[in-house]
Amino acid sequence: MTSEAAQPAPRRRGRPGNDQATVLREAIELFNLQGYDATSMGDLAARLGFTKSALYHHVPSKEHLLQQALDEALDSLATVVAAARSETDATAIERLRHAVRGSVDTLIEHLPAVTLLLRVRGNSPAELAALARRRELDAALAELVAQAAAEGGIRTDIPPDLISRLLFGMVNSLSEWVRPSGRTSPEAIAEALTAIAFEGLLAP
Amino acid sequence: MTSEAAQPAPRRRGRPGNDQATVLREAIELFNLQGYDATSMGDLAARLGFTKSALYHHVPSKEHLLQQALDEALDSLATVVAAARSETDATAIERLRHAVRGSVDTLIEHLPAVTLLLRVRGNSPAELAALARRRELDAALAELVAQAAAEGGIRTDIPPDLISRLLFGMVNSLSEWVRPSGRTSPEAIAEALTAIAFEGLLAP
Repeated sequence: MTSEAAQPAPRRRGRPGNDQATVLREAIELFNLQGYDATSMGDLAARLGFTKSALYHHVPSKEHLLQQALDEALDSLATVVAAARSETDATAIERLRHAVRGSVDTLIEHLPAVTLLLRVRGNSPAELAALARRRELDAALAELVAQAAAEGGIRTDIPPDLISRLLFGMVNSLSEWVRPSGRTSPEAIAEALTAIAFEGLLAP
Repeated sequence: MTSEAAQPAPRRRGRPGNDQATVLREAIELFNLQGYDATSMGDLAARLGFTKSALYHHVPSKEHLLQQALDEALDSLATVVAAARSETDATAIERLRHAVRGSVDTLIEHLPAVTLLLRVRGNSPAELAALARRRELDAALAELVAQAAAEGGIRTDIPPDLISRLLFGMVNSLSEWVRPSGRTSPEAIAEALTAIAFEGLLAP
């Protein structure tokens, strides 16, 4: 690592890459605040202090912004699931624990994009494609649960599909209240969720 | 087959009570499908096969329908919480179990209204009032968790507030996938959720 790398990055206002990241971040905030369908490119331009034509200089369309946001969320979740599945030296229950833990970390790290993903209802081809990718990830997570049950690591009196829905339902519910500036650290939230899910609430 | 009781019920189109219940049910469906803000009274009239003026004969406004839906959800949840809190002969952990179980049953029984409630973001005085009532119920549920922890019934290594958020986050996440016609019975879902929350996933 050279000394240059240790310098703070210069502000790059006006450089397309930087502006595009800002536009995407602000777009996701606005979509989450007032709904994707109810948000116009005019609303986004006003929020950014851009003219509409300046906004279209940075991004081709509202759909393109949605696509980028959903890809951010889905790519990061897919990375977690792939990493957990690839741990073939670990027990199935360890793979499942890592998937739960990684999902929580990813949800908090990419909170706005994941929140947007979780609200998608399939109103456009981009949304339908995102729902299809979500179903694939859900199926992979349910398979991890089924493997942990088959291995004898987790209870078998509840169908693995139902366990998976309840477990990742609890994970996804974090998007309703977790705030990056909240007083509970992401670490503490992830630890608590994993402890409750695997060990339960009852006093030892 | 001649007995009157075996005849199909006559259609009561035009009877105010019946029509008002139908209008509310269809309104909630539409609000959940396309969002409250994006739904007009014209959309609702079209769905019901009414003229807009006929619709206004039944209900004074869209806000009135929202208010009725939110009241339905909040009143039923408040009943569950009050019942659990009033069981002063029971242990705190029993009261908490009953609150969890009752919340699941209520969510499934009043699924459309509770789904609408859970999506409210505070965009109007009615929504802000509903959020305030939800916070009161959440505080009462968190108090039940705190009592169960103080009594020694549940683990004390996680703050009761955080337990309550995760526990009822799992309950609320049911609204994302439970369907009244689904293959898993409400009973089985409630049993599974309660078992996972209290006993955890680990094999006994």
